[in-house]
Amino acid sequence: MDLQQEPAGRVANVRYLAGGSPPGAVLLIGAGDDVLVCPRTPTGDSSEGRLDETLRHVVLPSAGGDPAVAAVDFARKAAVDTLAIEEHHLSVARYRALGSVAPRMRLDDLGHAIEQERVVKDEDEITCLRIAAEITDQALGELLESILVGRTERHLALELERRLVDHGADGPAFPTSVATGPHAGRGGHRPTDRRVEEGDFLSVCLGANYRGYRCEIGRTFVIGTAPADWQIELYDLVFAAQRGAREALAPGAEYRDVDRAARQILDAAGYGDAVAPFLGHGVGLEIEEDPQLAPAAMGKLDACVPVTVEPGVHLPGRGGVRIDDTLVVRQEADGGPELLTITTKELLAL
Amino acid sequence: MDLQQEPAGRVANVRYLAGGSPPGAVLLIGAGDDVLVCPRTPTGDSSEGRLDETLRHVVLPSAGGDPAVAAVDFARKAAVDTLAIEEHHLSVARYRALGSVAPRMRLDDLGHAIEQERVVKDEDEITCLRIAAEITDQALGELLESILVGRTERHLALELERRLVDHGADGPAFPTSVATGPHAGRGGHRPTDRRVEEGDFLSVCLGANYRGYRCEIGRTFVIGTAPADWQIELYDLVFAAQRGAREALAPGAEYRDVDRAARQILDAAGYGDAVAPFLGHGVGLEIEEDPQLAPAAMGKLDACVPVTVEPGVHLPGRGGVRIDDTLVVRQEADGGPELLTITTKELLAL
Repeated sequence: MDLQQEPAGRVANVRYLAGGSPPGAVLLIGAGDDVLVCPRTPTGDSSEGRLDETLRHVVLPSAGGDPAVAAVDFARKAAVDTLAIEEHHLSVARYRALGSVAPRMRLDDLGHAIEQERVVKDEDEITCLRIAAEITDQALGELLESILVGRTERHLALELERRLVDHGADGPAFPTSVATGPHAGRGGHRPTDRRVEEGDFLSVCLGANYRGYRCEIGRTFVIGTAPADWQIELYDLVFAAQRGAREALAPGAEYRDVDRAARQILDAAGYGDAVAPFLGHGVGLEIEEDPQLAPAAMGKLDACVPVTVEPGVHLPGRGGVRIDDTLVVRQEADGGPELLTITTKELLAL
Repeated sequence: MDLQQEPAGRVANVRYLAGGSPPGAVLLIGAGDDVLVCPRTPTGDSSEGRLDETLRHVVLPSAGGDPAVAAVDFARKAAVDTLAIEEHHLSVARYRALGSVAPRMRLDDLGHAIEQERVVKDEDEITCLRIAAEITDQALGELLESILVGRTERHLALELERRLVDHGADGPAFPTSVATGPHAGRGGHRPTDRRVEEGDFLSVCLGANYRGYRCEIGRTFVIGTAPADWQIELYDLVFAAQRGAREALAPGAEYRDVDRAARQILDAAGYGDAVAPFLGHGVGLEIEEDPQLAPAAMGKLDACVPVTVEPGVHLPGRGGVRIDDTLVVRQEADGGPELLTITTKELLAL
């Protein structure tokens, strides 16, 4: 096996910068490794204009050893006196190694600047997300036409992932979740060998990765001829909460107000304790990226920010409901939030 | 989506320590997060006896915020004066945060002590690897009985992963690689939409994850009625190299001598430049862990160390051969190396 498993966030930042988007520096990266950004002029002040010139990136050939150390050594020989690094991605051990190869080099923390740059997407990025969502809707639609009773959560999850790839995904955006009966409605449920039974709630959460861009859809269904009353009531409630948050998506809206739009509906119905700590998040090169739509989140939405809206209620022992869409924030004049995942949100009995 | 993708190595170390294996400290971990090890007695010297008493581990409840910071704060209130951390897993940003919550606490680097502890496996761990290998052999065996011509690399890879789960795997140990025609024999090849054709070499590399333990098998086949002469020659060569390295596996053998046993055969045939930088590696909770069997690797094998032996030759434009097994190093008196992946290594024409 030659594949290294890599921290998702770091890789996403490297991919993003190498794609040429934010300008301003010479980017030094070792094969699939840390981001090191240095100012274009060796004597320039790295704290200003770091991201506002044309980016030139240098990928150093892997010659064995630590590629980040090789990158710093390269910068040192090029008379660079300051490098910007990502302290949240760089390990202490590697930081020390960089210091010892270039003791006089200043290592400035870039902080979350690249994550912040990644929040607002350009139309090429949104196109990738739109295609990812189309693929996801197709895979889910096909599953709904098949016989579900008697099949296990694991098999349904694998089947969905196969269909994602059939329709052109590079792979699943994240491990597909299929939750039946008492598991239904649980966020991040890992599929088990439990089989689908008559009367179950069935909730699925999946998404395609298309050219690195990841979207997400979550739907809940009922298995059998007709849902029970408690199932209809719970579904209508979560649906109302999800619609509330979707309608709150607009440029200038506070992150926490979007969260609150859904949360207050669930709270008022007495399910406050059963609700997840956040009800949505950004998507892009990572399936979970900034912003987070949560009660304590600070900041406002911009146009062209794709986010999920995914409230759910899980009742221990009984199951629950989760409804999850990926949308792009748009100006009112542009038609308001653009729904990427268009599979119906009616409560289907399958 | 609630699942966090996490760096594999860090998670493996937490899992290993929480399993209770190496003794000597209070282990503080935040949910799925950094390992922090502190001496059992608050005033004890953390540099000695750190790993030689009974381990007690404390998993702090997640109360929002950074769980590693919460863990250090917990230690500070317990009058602990020194914590051992893993500098290669801890980010600079988090290291600074730990320092600011407990400025007088000493943070000692644990280095790769836990990785080193993990190299030699106990019989419970080897049992998991043996089951993982059985599952892997079953999945591969079933694929060989099916029609292959006309199917894409992607589909075959997904099919293998589905079969792994069918037979009881928790999932694939790593992304399954299926390589056809000119792709065959390439290490870490990511499956494409190329379809299997008559006359192709077909190489597959897969493995099951069973209870966290990961194994690996790689095989190369020929599609059609009979292999061409060049295919037979190349196969025989890689087979001889792989056998050479397998036979070199013994307690006390230098890592680099195992590598050399295979490499010299490929070198002598003129393929030195086409050979990967290492020809095997440890497996366990990570698919690629210590030791590495490579020309510059320092150290000697012990009994009960599971490793892969995976030489290959890839000829650009033509394809190639890769043969990969997982074995456990055993004493001669115990029958020598234990082969876990038992699928035939004859050159099958499928």
